[in-house]
Amino acid sequence: MSDERTIQQVLAKYVRGADRRDGAAVAELFTDDGKVEIFYSNSGNPEPMGEIVGPGPIATAVSQMMRPHPPGGWSHHTTHDPIIEVIGDRATLDAQFIVFSVQAKEKPEGGWPADALGVQGSVTPIESGYYRPILHRVGGGWKIQTLRIVMDMPIAFPRH
Amino acid sequence: MSDERTIQQVLAKYVRGADRRDGAAVAELFTDDGKVEIFYSNSGNPEPMGEIVGPGPIATAVSQMMRPHPPGGWSHHTTHDPIIEVIGDRATLDAQFIVFSVQAKEKPEGGWPADALGVQGSVTPIESGYYRPILHRVGGGWKIQTLRIVMDMPIAFPRH
Amino acid sequence: MSDERTIQQVLAKYVRGADRRDGAAVAELFTDDGKVEIFYSNSGNPEPMGEIVGPGPIATAVSQMMRPHPPGGWSHHTTHDPIIEVIGDRATLDAQFIVFSVQAKEKPEGGWPADALGVQGSVTPIESGYYRPILHRVGGGWKIQTLRIVMDMPIAFPRH
Repeated sequence: MSDERTIQQVLAKYVRGADRRDGAAVAELFTDDGKVEIFYSNSGNPEPMGEIVGPGPIATAVSQMMRPHPPGGWSHHTTHDPIIEVIGDRATLDAQFIVFSVQAKEKPEGGWPADALGVQGSVTPIESGYYRPILHRVGGGWKIQTLRIVMDMPIAFPRH
Repeated sequence: MSDERTIQQVLAKYVRGADRRDGAAVAELFTDDGKVEIFYSNSGNPEPMGEIVGPGPIATAVSQMMRPHPPGGWSHHTTHDPIIEVIGDRATLDAQFIVFSVQAKEKPEGGWPADALGVQGSVTPIESGYYRPILHRVGGGWKIQTLRIVMDMPIAFPRH
Repeated sequence: MSDERTIQQVLAKYVRGADRRDGAAVAELFTDDGKVEIFYSNSGNPEPMGEIVGPGPIATAVSQMMRPHPPGGWSHHTTHDPIIEVIGDRATLDAQFIVFSVQAKEKPEGGWPADALGVQGSVTPIESGYYRPILHRVGGGWKIQTLRIVMDMPIAFPRH
């Protein structure tokens, strides 16, 4: 498998892990000194929103800080149009991302109403931006050393 | 062309055929014993929703059971972040999918109203899930032996 | 890097340039006699909507004719399920596209309201269709000779 395909697959596994809220699966994609840097694009003046350093904290962030799916809920972190540059044992990837939130309707006890037809629920795009990982060749594969996430929109955190 | 690229292209042709409601084009992507299995994910307890066995019935399902596009209507079955594993003459692919429904406005006889500007119509995500085909190497290429479709949302069928 | 990957990357750079309204970056992806042809699909009877010939006019169109992003605004031209055919020094690509419009909320002077939580803004799909470029091998890479854009929906232009 080419380096480029392997690298795309690392990102594919990252988004699968994020959608499953599977911190261990996500952490495994990073080097031992791996980190995640999150920015708000802010019309070209990137504003840091957070940094998570090390596979342990990354696992915790995915498992505990991402909002759990409600009943019938799911998400799809999707990535698009990767630009990949491999130089020896280092690589960069730049991919667009769109996150979709899915909410299935619950089937009523007595079955769907007579006028219900087709798919029961909704799919809504809720987040977007760019994933810009830097990867290192480790053994026969590639791991993420730094995942820079640039979000198109700011985030409001709960007040304490 | 690499096996991985060829396999991605099989799925790309599948979604093109689905959007055109072109049963013959879709059926051609399957082996002679090919089948489609449809599940509702049901929060991790997959519920079978249907099975279609053989290229003939698959062609019929695509051509006759998928709702025809209304005037000005179209769809885009899009797939994302494929994870591909090739072992000898067999391969698995796991891709996210989002289906978009498109509805163009019809141009009025007298032309667009004075305040109309830009694209006239709407694009709406309506379905999502995972395509998980198992493929076999056939001749110089790859064909789908089983296409498992896992939908994030249940479907209500017309009552008779 | 394989021809297919290089060709996908040309399209990836095209959509990046379009989202940045960076005419020079887009024009550089075309051959000296490169052109863009825009059609409305019109339920299978493609209707020409415009043609732009030469890298100079293409640069101008991207930089000056695409609507600028409003404050907090951005776009993502995303492409999906490429079908690529390389024959010697010529290649065709067929990709689905969806354009998303993003609008971030502006953070109020006094901070986000107490009930604001999560991402502040919206992501909306607004356009869709197919990119069907014809590419030529130039030097070690590939350039677009003709970019045929088939839009699913018609466009209303301002009246003068």
